[in-house]
Formats: sequence, structure tokens, C-alpha cells
Amino acid sequence: MASDTVKLGDYLFTRLLQLGVTDIFGVPGDYNLRLLDYVVPAGLHWVGNCNELNAAYAADGYGRIKGLSALVTTFGVGELSAANGIAGAYGERSPVVHIVGTPPRPLQIHITAAQTKVTDTTTAPDKIDWILQQALYHQRPVYIEIPDDMPDLPVSSANLKSSPIRVQSALSPPHESKVISRILERLYSAQRPFILVDGESRSLGILDELDTLIQKTNWPTWTTVFGKGLVNESHPNVYGLYAAAFGDKPAQEYFEAADLILTFGPHYSDTNSYFWTTVPKDAVAISFKDDTIQIESDTYRDMSASSVLTQILHSLDNTRTAQVTGPPKVEVTTSDIQDNDIIAQNNFYRLVNPIFRENDIVLAETGTASYGGRHCKLPPNSRFFTAVTWLSIGYMLPATLGAALAKRSLNQATGASNQTILITGEGSLQMTAQEISVMIKEKLNILIFIINNEGYTIERVIHGRKQAYNDVPFWRHTQALNYFGADEDQIANSVFTARTCGELQEVLKNERVHSGTGLRLIEVAMDREDVQGPLLYLLNKQIAEEKAAATC
Amino acid sequence: MASDTVKLGDYLFTRLLQLGVTDIFGVPGDYNLRLLDYVVPAGLHWVGNCNELNAAYAADGYGRIKGLSALVTTFGVGELSAANGIAGAYGERSPVVHIVGTPPRPLQIHITAAQTKVTDTTTAPDKIDWILQQALYHQRPVYIEIPDDMPDLPVSSANLKSSPIRVQSALSPPHESKVISRILERLYSAQRPFILVDGESRSLGILDELDTLIQKTNWPTWTTVFGKGLVNESHPNVYGLYAAAFGDKPAQEYFEAADLILTFGPHYSDTNSYFWTTVPKDAVAISFKDDTIQIESDTYRDMSASSVLTQILHSLDNTRTAQVTGPPKVEVTTSDIQDNDIIAQNNFYRLVNPIFRENDIVLAETGTASYGGRHCKLPPNSRFFTAVTWLSIGYMLPATLGAALAKRSLNQATGASNQTILITGEGSLQMTAQEISVMIKEKLNILIFIINNEGYTIERVIHGRKQAYNDVPFWRHTQALNYFGADEDQIANSVFTARTCGELQEVLKNERVHSGTGLRLIEVAMDREDVQGPLLYLLNKQIAEEKAAATC
Repeated sequence: MASDTVKLGDYLFTRLLQLGVTDIFGVPGDYNLRLLDYVVPAGLHWVGNCNELNAAYAADGYGRIKGLSALVTTFGVGELSAANGIAGAYGERSPVVHIVGTPPRPLQIHITAAQTKVTDTTTAPDKIDWILQQALYHQRPVYIEIPDDMPDLPVSSANLKSSPIRVQSALSPPHESKVISRILERLYSAQRPFILVDGESRSLGILDELDTLIQKTNWPTWTTVFGKGLVNESHPNVYGLYAAAFGDKPAQEYFEAADLILTFGPHYSDTNSYFWTTVPKDAVAISFKDDTIQIESDTYRDMSASSVLTQILHSLDNTRTAQVTGPPKVEVTTSDIQDNDIIAQNNFYRLVNPIFRENDIVLAETGTASYGGRHCKLPPNSRFFTAVTWLSIGYMLPATLGAALAKRSLNQATGASNQTILITGEGSLQMTAQEISVMIKEKLNILIFIINNEGYTIERVIHGRKQAYNDVPFWRHTQALNYFGADEDQIANSVFTARTCGELQEVLKNERVHSGTGLRLIEVAMDREDVQGPLLYLLNKQIAEEKAAATC
Repeated sequence: MASDTVKLGDYLFTRLLQLGVTDIFGVPGDYNLRLLDYVVPAGLHWVGNCNELNAAYAADGYGRIKGLSALVTTFGVGELSAANGIAGAYGERSPVVHIVGTPPRPLQIHITAAQTKVTDTTTAPDKIDWILQQALYHQRPVYIEIPDDMPDLPVSSANLKSSPIRVQSALSPPHESKVISRILERLYSAQRPFILVDGESRSLGILDELDTLIQKTNWPTWTTVFGKGLVNESHPNVYGLYAAAFGDKPAQEYFEAADLILTFGPHYSDTNSYFWTTVPKDAVAISFKDDTIQIESDTYRDMSASSVLTQILHSLDNTRTAQVTGPPKVEVTTSDIQDNDIIAQNNFYRLVNPIFRENDIVLAETGTASYGGRHCKLPPNSRFFTAVTWLSIGYMLPATLGAALAKRSLNQATGASNQTILITGEGSLQMTAQEISVMIKEKLNILIFIINNEGYTIERVIHGRKQAYNDVPFWRHTQALNYFGADEDQIANSVFTARTCGELQEVLKNERVHSGTGLRLIEVAMDREDVQGPLLYLLNKQIAEEKAAATC
């Protein structure tokens, strides 16, 4: 083979590696085996998942930590099983390259930002480069089909050496300077400014700039649910989650009286915006969106949030911005919690929160865990995952696998260590539990809290609180490490249970839990109808309706 | 509410019950909870699955035993997770009613034979009846969307009382009598007739007629893989599987020299037809297909296989058909098997076969289990499942759940008893293992053989026999009953392992195994590359290629 060619399979995986994708998820199938031959020789690690849906969830989690991920499935059965995971990655912007090994026939899934099919060796390198660039630019999944007879064929290696894959910064449009001036004016005139960081700030690539802005202005700053973990919560002016209309009255009053609300990367799903109560009125709004910037009711198109924010930070004169004191912070203590108290939503997260460390990743599965976990205080450089749009239960456990792998690979460069902490209900866990075996096989530092509340508590709260259809089968969760292949030491020393707050505190003090390695599992019991926040509102509404029905 | 109305949710589930669907599969989700309120009050049993893909697989299995099944998912996340299962039901013709609870917006999946959306109470009863009839007629999945605000609304109950849902027999086309005459002529002139029963005979509704034909003619009869279990293999003229070109030379010679090959319900996928080697030459072919009958190279359209076959049986003069002696039968013995032999593909099925009883259902998962299981001899009234078109691994375990539930419900009418026997590789099992907990919860009589051959052996055989991507994580399968919530007695007495043939025979003698109740699990170890039949051919081809590559 000529020296300026490589085999097609090699080209693809080398490109992924150049973009920082060091681990590939998936399941082997009849039409991707020849392609899989190139994963390890290209210097990548193969993570065989238990099924394709789980593989897609894992790739999604990986993509949110490393900025790009890839999964390989076979066509038909494989890609259809993955479909729900890919759709979720689309809805919440995780750039997953879905590589599909095919016989020579197509079955396209239209839940990706871009699709391509490799058909010949001449155009293959450019097609591969283009689809990878699409994933980086849109921060959404893309789809590439590779026929089974093509991985071994030679293609030109010229791009590998001379054309790195980059997303070009958007060109500054003629109106950029006007936009910057308008924003600066508003920054200088604001007396009650409110900074709100939402989740698409990550895909906009402006997290470092935001940190500078937050420190430089010292203005009161909150995040949305999706934005949680993207801001350093140890800065004194950072408040954590803005959960409008549920509890935190001082923050809500401050929001409502604000004369400037700077929103970054807004993601307006009903769940993320608490039914749009976090959306500012036009009169006070400046919002940095996908490729537009909104100032009051004016929308400026073709803008680069990164470019505009960088220039603003460059120009910003600190002496001209208001010195602002935000509303009082809500102090979180555990002093009211007694050892004999049974574990409940209103004490669990406060007890667990202190074990979170710098660099950790905390994942709270859809359901009660999400509504509790989002109020924890995060240490610097930690990340937080919870679903805000797609809300597919079962996602978070494989996403934990993916995120932990991505973080481990990032740690290798920095020398940092961390643990990845999953908080999940037992109903969600049952959907995708088999990935625990892959966590064990991969020797990842993962701590799983299983909240066992005997069924789909979040569904009980929405409707049918006493209905059997909201029950789930009984499992012995403490047997998971045994069943899923952990070694004897892990089985004996890495599984914990707690029913009271005192028991939980004892478990949390265990060195295996707060500083251990490998997979550790803690099962905590909670009441079937134990909920808080918006879920408690729904539950009480249902109980009131039942009472009304019973008395008429 | 007026006495001639019922609530919409009630209407739907009553209709399903009238059609014999007594069990509903699914997972609760935000938009189907109100609908699920109607399942139990309508007299149906709710089977909550661990995830939607598994629910779809279970419904597929149920539909193949009872002729119709239903699963309820929520829209979006729920229906997308189910997509692969629905596509498989489409490909292999299992009539699954996929009921999707929605908010008022559509997301249609086009892998169903018919789709409808309930939009108003006036047309709702007829739409529901129509979609159920479509499932019965096409014997494929159908899709119905029910908005979340509609299950409680009253609809007319007139259809429930006066209009049973029926699939009308096709009207006899003018050419029917000519077709019948032509077929009778060929039946009378045939000297070397060959009857081949394929899997779509079940959906054609001609199994009783076929049994009569097979007994009345006494002609040599085989089935395809998909047709296995649809014919009574204890009739002396029934040979079992016709696996052309792999082993059984006398049958192949008889096939090739036949002057008449009667094929019923052909399903020409590559796997089912051994790459079309079971397809007869036109000159000797009479084939009863979906709604056509082929005689030599003539295709007659708009035919009812059932009507034509009934009339043929009515007219058939036994004294005018040839008395035929088929090829010698291959005798299966176990006399060559020694107690110390390690368990292998070439002895396992022969040892297990004798425990199959009348009324049992035997399911052999895609992979080595399928290639072995299909050669077992089935007792009367038993059924056999193996994938022949969609081949999605992970399908067979939830399908076992579905089939066992369907059979138990049929048994209640007949007083019969049975067990449902799954033979699966451990790689496939890992995909959907959590449904073991539902089998336990439902107290079903299921016997699971897990063939532990350390990975995806069928993929090793196709490509990459030494590659790590064909490995799977290590699980302790004997812990499954413990983890998935079985009671202490089951855990202690219903789990078995065997490595040698002697050990396996001891296990098979255990009363818990051959006549027990509840879930029982037998793990057998086999070699990583232990295969037979077409798989052995592929493996040897790969080894030869490796040798050739090593020497050049």
C-alpha cells in the first residue's frame, strides 16, 4: 500500500482519535465486525456494551464530558435499538458519531444533525471529515454508514497530516460592533443585574469566558437545571440553581425586579425552564443563543457567542459596572437531622452533598433523584448531569459509564483523580442495569446510590399513586456486584445499605465510599410517595382530587 | 353516563379482551398513565416490563402464541425504545398492537402495518376496531396513538355488543375453481411429492388443514426453520427440518428429484431458506403464499390459502394419490455420548431433547442455540421459536416471557400444563436479562438453559474469532435468581450448572428440572468456538484464511 494511503477503517478511527475520542462504545454485529478490527490498532479502547441502547446512552454521557463520542452498531437491529439514545443526544445536544456497519443498503434514521454514507474510496476521507465536523459544530449526533466490504480498502491519508478538523469561528457580521456596544451600554446602566447560565453554554464553548465574567462583575449568578455544573459554585456571587416559583422567594423576587437578565445558552424545554418561568421579559433580556443574540426584542443573527463575549470581556471597564448585593443566600445545614430519622428526600441530598469533591461528576437520574440532586452544591470543576428534555429513564446509568470513561481519559493528561457519582431510583436502574458489569470490567471509580422507593415514584406522583402499574419487580440490589462479576473483595466490601440517617452517615464515613476505587453501591430505602418541590405539588393535587371524588 | 356508552380506555381494552388478549405488556410513562387505569378494570392483566424494548419483544412472543398482543408505551422515549422490537415483529409477522399514550402531537413510526390516531370520541370506536382488524389480517404490528386527555371520555358501546371484530374470509375469485382443479391434477399425478411447511402457514391460518393433508396423503413432509413447530413431528411421514445442503443428503436428493413440492406459507429470508436452497424450481412448485397461489410459473392473485386448501381436502380422493416412501430417516441416538464428555453443541441438544413434552414451547435464541435447537424433535402440540429474519439478539428472553404468559392463559381454557424452555447464549441473555425478574414475579413455568461460551460465538465465527470485541463482560449467571428477587427455596433448588455430559444428565433427571414449576436456570459451559452446521463451515473458512494470510 502506498505510504500516503491508509485503510478506510484506520482513517475513520484515527480521525476520531485526533479529535480526542479515545474510547468507542457499541455492540458487534454481522455488518460491523470488519470495521471493529480497526478500533484497537488505531490506538482506541473498545467498550463492548450489553446492548445498543445502553451503548448510545454511554456515548451520550461521554460526549458531554469530552465534546465528542462515537458508537458503532450494526444496521437494522442495532441502529433501531440505539434510536432512543440517539434521539436523546439530539434533544440535549451531545455530539455522538453513530457509525453503522451495513451491507450495501441504507436505513436512515432522521434523528441526527447530519447523515452520510461512505460509497467510494475517493470521497471517503472528506465525507468522514465532514460528518465529524458536523458533530462538533452542531454538538448533536451524526450518522455515518460504512458498508462491510470497505474498512480494508486504502484511502488517501493526506487529510490526516495536513488538514486538522476544526470548526471555524463564525465570521464577525457587520452588525457585531453595534451589538457589542449595545450590550456594554446595558452592562454599565444595570443596577439589578441577574446572570443565568443555561446548559447550551457548554456547546457554545463559552464556559471560560463566563467564569471570567462572573468573577469580574461579581454579579449575582444562577444556573438553570441544564446549566448546573457549568459554573463554579464556590464563587461568593454564585447561588446555584434558579428554580423559579418553588421555594426560594428572595431569588424569585430578585429575578422579577431585575433590570438586566443575561442569559447564556438558553434551552427552553418545559422541564428545564420550570414551565418557562425562568424566561426573562424582553425589556430586561440579553440572551446568547445558538447563533443569535437577543437584546430586548431585537434578534441579531449569525453571531458567535464566543467572539462577542470575548470582545466584551476585553472592553469591559470594571469601574463602570454596578457593585451589586444579591439576595440573601439560603444556608444549607444538616443540624436538624437526627440519627434515627428515616432517610427521606428532604435529608438525603444534604447528607450526601459533603462527599462531592473537586473534579467529580454527579449524575441524578430522572425522577426524584433529579429534583433532589439539582439542589446540591457542587465543588469547583465538577460536572452535573440530569435530563431536562428527553427524560428517558434508564439513560443515566450507562451515561455514568460514558462520563466516567471520558473523565478518566481526561485525568490521564492532568493527573487529576475523581469519582463519578450516580443517584438513581431503582425503577430507572432496572432499565439498563446490565451496564454495571461493564463498569466493573472497566474498573471505573463509580459510586452508585440506589434510592429504593418501591416503584416509579415520579409516575405515582403524576397519576395513579396506588396503581400496580407503577410497581416494579423486586430485586436484591445488594447482589448486583456479585451477579455482574465483581471480585470477592469488592463484593464483600463495596456494597452498603442504609435506612436511617445515622446509618447513612456511617456509610458515608467509610473510606471505601468517600475515597475508594472501583464500583461501590449504596442502597437507601425511601418511602413510596416521598417527594419534594414540584413533585410534592403534583402529589398533593392528586390527593386533593381523590378526596373530592370520594366525597361527591 | 348513558348505558350505551363506555369510556374510551374501557372500549379499547374490552375490544382487546374480546380478541383473546388477556395480558398487556408495557412500561408506564407520563402520557399513558390515564390509559393504564383501564387495563385491570377491563379484566386484563398488566405485565410491567423492565424496559420498552423488552416489552415489545414480550408482546411479539405473546402474539405468536395467541394470535394478537398489545403493548402500551409512552410516546417519544417509550416508542423509540420499542422500535427495534416492533420492527422485528413486522419482519417475522407477529401481530402486536402498539398503543402509544401521547400529548397532542404525533411521532409516527413507520414499521407497522397500519397506523391510526384517536382524535375524537365519535370516530374512536371504529378506528380502534379498524386498527385491531388490521393487526389480525396482516399478522403484523399496528400502531395507535391515544392522547392523554381521552381515556376517560365516553364513547358509544354499540360495536362491543353487536359487531365482533372479524377478518372476513377472502371472497373466492372467479379463477378459484380452476386453481383447485390444477392443484388436484398435480396431486394425483405426483410420484415424488415433497411437502414443505414454512412459518407463514401460522398467519395464513391453515395449520389444522395442513395436519389433515399430511395425514391423509401420508407424503414425506418437512418444515423450514420458521415452520418448525407448526407440524406434528410424531406423524411417521414427518421428517422435521429441511436444512438443505447441510448434512442430510437423502433428504436433499429427495428434494432435488421431487416432481411436486407443495410449499405452505413461504418466508424467503436468506437465513430461513438457507440462502434460497429450499426454494423449489418452478416446474415442480405449488406454493400457498400470503394472498397468492403459485402453480409452476403461474401466479394466481387474491386467493385464500385457507379456502383453497379446505376445498382440496374436501375433494381429495385418497385412492388416486401416490403411496410414497420417503428417504430413510436419520436416527438420533445418544449412545455415543460418554459421561466424561464435555458438553458441546454436538451432544447438548440430543441430551436435552427428551425433556420436551407435549404442549411445551421451546425457544432457541439467535446464535449457536438456534442452529442446535432447530434439529430437536418436537412433541405434538409443542411450538418452536427461533429468529429467521430480524435476528435481533436479546429478543428471545422477553419473547419467552410473552409466550409463557400466552400459553398459561390458553392452558386455563384447556386444563393443559406445559413448560416454556429457553436455550440462549450468555451474550444474548445479557441484552435483556432483567426480564428474568418479571418471569419470577409472574410465577411462570420457565426453564432457561444458558450456554456460556464466553462471548458472541456466532460473531466470532463470522469474523474476528480471537478479537476482544466479541467478548462479553463476566457475569455470575447462577446468581440471577437471587439478584432478580426469587424466593429462598427457588434460589436454593432451581439453579443448576453442568460441564460434562454426565453432569448434564444428572441435572436433567432432577424433578425440579423436568417437571418443576416457576423459573429454573441451568448454566452449561461450552467452548468459545464450538459450533456446527453452517457455522462450522464459516469458522473453518476463517481459519483457512488466517492460515493463508500467515504463510504469505
